[in-house]
Parts: sequence; structure tokens; C-alpha cells
Amino acid sequence: MGGELKVEPQPLPQPGQGEARIRVALAGVCNTDLEIVRGYMGFEGTLGHELVGVVDACSDPAWVGRRVCADINVACDVCAVCRAGDPHHCPNRTVVGIVGRDGAFADALVVPIRNLVPVPENVSDDAAVFAEPLAAAFEILEQVAVGPDTSVLVLGDGKLGLLCAMALRTTGCALTTVGRHESKLALLEGIETTTELAADTRFDVVVEATGSSEGLAAALDHVRARGTLVLKSTFAGRPQVDTNRIVVDEIRLVGSRCGPMPRALQAMADGVIDPRPLIHHRRNLDEGVEAIALAQQRGVLKVLLSIRP
Amino acid sequence: MGGELKVEPQPLPQPGQGEARIRVALAGVCNTDLEIVRGYMGFEGTLGHELVGVVDACSDPAWVGRRVCADINVACDVCAVCRAGDPHHCPNRTVVGIVGRDGAFADALVVPIRNLVPVPENVSDDAAVFAEPLAAAFEILEQVAVGPDTSVLVLGDGKLGLLCAMALRTTGCALTTVGRHESKLALLEGIETTTELAADTRFDVVVEATGSSEGLAAALDHVRARGTLVLKSTFAGRPQVDTNRIVVDEIRLVGSRCGPMPRALQAMADGVIDPRPLIHHRRNLDEGVEAIALAQQRGVLKVLLSIRP
Repeated sequence: MGGELKVEPQPLPQPGQGEARIRVALAGVCNTDLEIVRGYMGFEGTLGHELVGVVDACSDPAWVGRRVCADINVACDVCAVCRAGDPHHCPNRTVVGIVGRDGAFADALVVPIRNLVPVPENVSDDAAVFAEPLAAAFEILEQVAVGPDTSVLVLGDGKLGLLCAMALRTTGCALTTVGRHESKLALLEGIETTTELAADTRFDVVVEATGSSEGLAAALDHVRARGTLVLKSTFAGRPQVDTNRIVVDEIRLVGSRCGPMPRALQAMADGVIDPRPLIHHRRNLDEGVEAIALAQQRGVLKVLLSIRP
Repeated sequence: MGGELKVEPQPLPQPGQGEARIRVALAGVCNTDLEIVRGYMGFEGTLGHELVGVVDACSDPAWVGRRVCADINVACDVCAVCRAGDPHHCPNRTVVGIVGRDGAFADALVVPIRNLVPVPENVSDDAAVFAEPLAAAFEILEQVAVGPDTSVLVLGDGKLGLLCAMALRTTGCALTTVGRHESKLALLEGIETTTELAADTRFDVVVEATGSSEGLAAALDHVRARGTLVLKSTFAGRPQVDTNRIVVDEIRLVGSRCGPMPRALQAMADGVIDPRPLIHHRRNLDEGVEAIALAQQRGVLKVLLSIRP
């Protein structure tokens, strides 16, 4: 896309050995897409890393016709990190629609077969398109012990904050979500929400999902001594951090990114999480530029691109 | 001391019920003392939180005559944090020579009996006076799993960095210490040291012990994806932190402060650690102001105050 955001015809990509082509049904616009449009990662190519579709060409014919999502981290499989079993952190990885690999705002995209994640039959496309961001929310539970006795605060009522709250709720923890928008917080049925938190309230675990340096400072204020602060948002620039609070109160900061997509899909299949109330707008692929503009508007949650009806 | 650093006569403090008076033999000057002199914590009173001495008055006579160090965190014992078993993080605590309680640069100080830590017979006063900072170094091992397969980098060859390296070495981990002073690094016999580290070298665990924001940035550069960065130093001001690196590479930051003094004393009793080569200067109590000035000089490691011969 070379510095300019546009929709233009592309040849249908052809899968090689070990690869699958997914005909995209739905794709979601993520805040990371908006950051990329502003220059984050210096990415040039087709955006889009939240998707659901159907495999229509594959070197393994057993996959053809199956409804799938895709793990967005495409690892090299041969480096020390991959061999140690951590492909999500392969230093040579490409990332669908983010780093060195075309994404899902297209008729089709190609990914390695090992990145395919089957979608359970009872999970609709509208729900399955949330598998990637919901997996990122579930990543918190892969990294931090959260149980019924854990007090947890989620800061932020954007898409990420809401999905984090939904994932955390499955643990039965004592959960509070703080945001600025009553209308968004209202989507968190059964979860304690507030637009204002008493200054001296402290939690075992605080999840920073605002993406603002003020949010980061507030998150640090609200975590107890020896508590855990989970950083989910990336930030523009390098925020100033009260590292003395971290040292004196022996706080743990945990950076948290991509997570387990099968777990996210299973939670939706089990009816434990339904992210569909987050859908605010739908546009067709040829309205892609407008879709991005919509997603940039304050207060707008998920914008979906319908690629094929 | 009211904004000015001075040595002045004080009446001998009297221990109350549940308290002990320690006649100080030796006290160490710590970087925290230097920070307090520059205004950190707004402390007014007698400095000094590294000490060894003999109990000379106590409501429990069994303690009188025993050689002891003291845990510097004096907890309230009744708040929720104390009842949860974490007195080091009691929000109402005073801290010997740092927060609301006179310290060890004096003939004697009073602490609760429960803060007394007996000194093993074969640990000299010169070694025992390191129990508090060495315990802070051992705190890393209470917080982070470090074993023979763990690659560890210590950044900083000041007192804290050297003690951290000594404590970490007891695990048999693959340890490297980076500093700026060949003469200081030479004290770490048997540990790999360097004054220059290749830019692309990454470690499972990195310990930040430089106290500089450049050190913090370097620490973050040298920790691997999903690795752990231990923050031991406090910083002047709020450094800018590359939180995106933390998020994208899912790094854990762990703030680390006071630690287990019995463990530190035992390591010295077992002959596993000998911190005495860090002693650079000795002064008497009435030379206290000069001792602080000495400790502020570049390249000077531990300055001890001899209170009683």
C-alpha cells in the first residue's frame, strides 16, 4: 500500500507445498491496523489479521472446504526459538497483515497449513472472526495465575479491554472493569464496571488495555504490592514509568500479546463468551478505506469487512 | 538531620516491650543513604540500615549479649498485608534508617525483637554487615526460577551488581556480569565478566543493577523474548521505557527489593559468598559526614562505619 491506504485488485495468491489458501469470509479491523496506517511496524502490504474463511486450495486436500481461522505468527521452524517450542516468538517470523506477509483484507490469503485453526461448527463467522483478539485476551490466563480468589482490574473499555474482561470472567475471579463509556461497559453483562475508581483501591492483577500512558500510570497505581500488571496495549512512543514503585513494591509487569486461538474458539463454542455485541459496523471489501476511517472514530468498537457474502 | 548531614550526640534509645536495643559494631553506607542525602523518601533522622551489633537491652533477656543483624522493615502486624504473611510490604511499615525510624549510624538503635537476625558464629562482623544488601541480592532467587540451565546477565558492577552476581552464582547458572570498571569486575572471581557485550546477545534473565536509565534500556535490549528482567535499582525520576518491546516479546519485569537475611548469612557461614573484598574504606562514627562523602566518590565500593571497636 506504499504509504497510502487503498483498495486495489490483486492476483489470487497460490499456495505452495505445506500451505493453504483461505477464501476470506469476514475480516475484522483491529487497533493494530490503525497504528500500522499511522506508520507502526513500517508495514507495506495487505492489512488484516483477524479473519475467518474457508480453505479452497491446499497441498493437503483434507483441508479443502474446511472453515478456519489462522494463527497470524508464521514461524521459521528452524531457529533456536522455534526448536525450543515457542514459534510465536520466532525472531524470523512473518506476521499476517503486520510483518512481511499479506493479510486478510483481500479475497484470499495464503498461510502455512500448521497455522490453520479449525472453527467449531456452532461458532458463527461473526463470532469466529474474533478468535485472534479473543486469543490475545486468553493469553493473560496462560501467563498469570488467576482464580476465584484473585481480584482483577481491567483498565480500558475498548475492544481489547472488553475481550480481556470476557476472558478473565471465565475464571470466576473478582473482576472490575474501568472505562470511560457507559455504553461500552454495558456490554459486559454480569461484570462489575465503573467509570471511576477510588484512588486507594488495589488489585492482585491489573490489566492495562487503554493504550494510553495515563492508563499505564493508573494501572500501576492500582496494583497491590507483589501484584501483577499485565501490559496488553502497545503505546505510541516510550511512556515514562514509575520504576521505583515497581522496585519498592516488588510489582511484576507482564507483557502479553498473541494467545491460544483454539482456546478462544472453544470458549465461544461452549457459549461461555459471545463477542458479537462488539460489532458496530459492517462494510464490503471495496469500502475498505471507509471501514478503516470508521474504526478510527471515537467510541466505535469492531468494524467488520465482509469479503464474501 | 533536617536537610543537613551532621553527626550529633543523641540520647541512648530505650527498648520497650517486645523490642531490643542493638549496640552497633559496624554499619555500611548504601547507595540508598546517598539518595536519601539527595532528598529521596524525604527522610529526616539517623541514617543507616546495614548493621551488625550486639543486643544490650531487651524485654526478652535471652537476646541480651547475642550478635545480630536486623531486618529493616518494621511491620504493623495487624493490617491485611501483614496478616497475609507479607510484612516486608506492610503499608504502615517503618524502615530502619529510611522511613520514620532512626537507623544504625549511631551508638545504638532499637528494633522489634522479631526483626532480630542472629549472626552465625563463624561470620565476622565485616561480613555480617553485608547481610542486608546481600539478602536483597538473594531476593532475586526468591522471585525468579534460576538454575544451571538459565543464562543470566547482571548489568552493573557497583555494590549491588556485585552482590547480585555473587548470589546468582550459587545457583550454578550461566552467569555474565557487565560493568565499566575492570578493577571491580575482578572481585568476581570465577564469574564471566566483560566491559562490552555484543549487541545481539540475549539472556533468559537480566538483572538491572546500574541505577541509570541507560542501564535499564540496555537491560531490556539483552533479555530474550519471554525472558525476565529483574529491576533491582531505583532511579532518579521516571525513566522512559520501551513498553512495546515488553508487550510484543512478552517480557516479564520483576521489581525486587529486600530479601531473606538468614539466607544471606547462611551463604556467608557456608563460605559460599565472601563480600569482604567490597570493603574500600573504614571510618569512625564521628567521621560520618566524611564517610558519606567518600561513598559518593566514583569507583568507591563499600564504606564502613566502625561504631565500636
